[in-house]
Amino acid sequence: MNEFVATNPDFAAVVRHAVLSMPFAQLLGFDYSRIEPGVTEIVLPYRDDLSFRPGFFAGAVVGSLADFAAVSAAFTLVPKGWFVATVDYDVKVVAPPAGERLIARGRVIKPGRTLLFAAADVFVERDGSESLCAVCVATARAAESR
Amino acid sequence: MNEFVATNPDFAAVVRHAVLSMPFAQLLGFDYSRIEPGVTEIVLPYRDDLSFRPGFFAGAVVGSLADFAAVSAAFTLVPKGWFVATVDYDVKVVAPPAGERLIARGRVIKPGRTLLFAAADVFVERDGSESLCAVCVATARAAESR
Amino acid sequence: MNEFVATNPDFAAVVRHAVLSMPFAQLLGFDYSRIEPGVTEIVLPYRDDLSFRPGFFAGAVVGSLADFAAVSAAFTLVPKGWFVATVDYDVKVVAPPAGERLIARGRVIKPGRTLLFAAADVFVERDGSESLCAVCVATARAAESR
Amino acid sequence: MNEFVATNPDFAAVVRHAVLSMPFAQLLGFDYSRIEPGVTEIVLPYRDDLSFRPGFFAGAVVGSLADFAAVSAAFTLVPKGWFVATVDYDVKVVAPPAGERLIARGRVIKPGRTLLFAAADVFVERDGSESLCAVCVATARAAESR
Repeated sequence: MNEFVATNPDFAAVVRHAVLSMPFAQLLGFDYSRIEPGVTEIVLPYRDDLSFRPGFFAGAVVGSLADFAAVSAAFTLVPKGWFVATVDYDVKVVAPPAGERLIARGRVIKPGRTLLFAAADVFVERDGSESLCAVCVATARAAESR
Repeated sequence: MNEFVATNPDFAAVVRHAVLSMPFAQLLGFDYSRIEPGVTEIVLPYRDDLSFRPGFFAGAVVGSLADFAAVSAAFTLVPKGWFVATVDYDVKVVAPPAGERLIARGRVIKPGRTLLFAAADVFVERDGSESLCAVCVATARAAESR
Repeated sequence: MNEFVATNPDFAAVVRHAVLSMPFAQLLGFDYSRIEPGVTEIVLPYRDDLSFRPGFFAGAVVGSLADFAAVSAAFTLVPKGWFVATVDYDVKVVAPPAGERLIARGRVIKPGRTLLFAAADVFVERDGSESLCAVCVATARAAESR
Repeated sequence: MNEFVATNPDFAAVVRHAVLSMPFAQLLGFDYSRIEPGVTEIVLPYRDDLSFRPGFFAGAVVGSLADFAAVSAAFTLVPKGWFVATVDYDVKVVAPPAGERLIARGRVIKPGRTLLFAAADVFVERDGSESLCAVCVATARAAESR
């Protein structure tokens, strides 16, 4: 299904470096556990300052992580020297995000040259088992870096 | 147009206190400049750790602020002792969010008893003038606090 | 607010002709009551074959009309010889669409050269008074006709 | 993945009958090729009056079909005597829908008692091979029939 080919051989290093060097990514404190062509996985351990109330990740954190996972998946497929930016993202919070960490899995739905459609599912891990807490669809715009 | 009536006379204090005491709201560092029945305005000054790259607010920060503004607007209209939670939010980033502060204006579109539809426009202020950088529609679920 | 300028002086005739000559637009049976730069209004009288159950417009009809109104608004602002196509639309049905006719009001939120953001509010008219039944945000892609 | 259980043993007959007896469903002319707990498949052959221009399904038809497929999937999981209605649907048209028929595959993402989250992928079949042309996420509201 995710049989995409990355045109930039260094896509994984580029995505990891570019995204994790963003100050807001550092403020959230997530890391990638997987970067493949058209596919990403992002992990974010629980911290109180990311919560809505103790034990529950804030909805906007879940949405932010979904946006990063989906748009990063798009980022893996752009040519060398190109970057991506979010055009839109739609997040549905389907269950309370209570647990020890969030895992956001991004995937490209359809890659175009300048518009890429992607999605992400966000899971919350609690006592070692994962459950879905949010789904996201996103559109990313790709352009050559200036 | 926003001729809504708040059933809880203390709605402004309740919304302000409940939202601003959320740890993630504090991490973002925003404040309310307006809370009226069905209407909110949230202001967030620029900080480097909220950026995508220097000078530009991260897209996920813009989206998070829009979510808070829209769902807070819904929050103003629920009965005393009730709370709200985000069901979904859809954000479109229509222009680069570069500037000194973000201003998110939330408004209720249609209030129901348990589902409330709301929207938010996010403006970025630069050199004293505002421009629209994102729009958001959101659905909030209301329930009695347990 | 909707102070847009149409670059194509014939925008109203172009939009009206192009959209109303689409077979599916004819099947739905709507007409424009307003076409201005960045703004449209579409009217669709009730028919049983557009219903969900007698007296209620089907949700998908409401969504379709919202898409047409929003994307038509974008269409008013593209250069001569260009066309638009829907990239995405998000519809929220905020009240039951029961009444004699639907009125969808489209407006451009932000026009770009190749991506235009637009919105539409859909009202249902019943016994002479209008009430909001749906809101929509949409993205349209513009390209030169080949 | 779609390991849902239908509480109404007659769910397939109920969904098929209720949806296909809707006048607008009949106007579109689709049929179900699959109805299982939490899962649906809808097929719609090409007709000129469903087109944008000859050979291409109108975007609003694609979106309408996606809405029906997603919300029907939710419908399979509600108790006997309950019905569902669309709260929102978000459609992204990822490729031109040109072909002989549309196939919309709906699936429940997360079923709640009164709110159910669902999705649909829409494929267009051309010369015997399918390709993805749209994705949709939707929220349905369930209630007891009065």
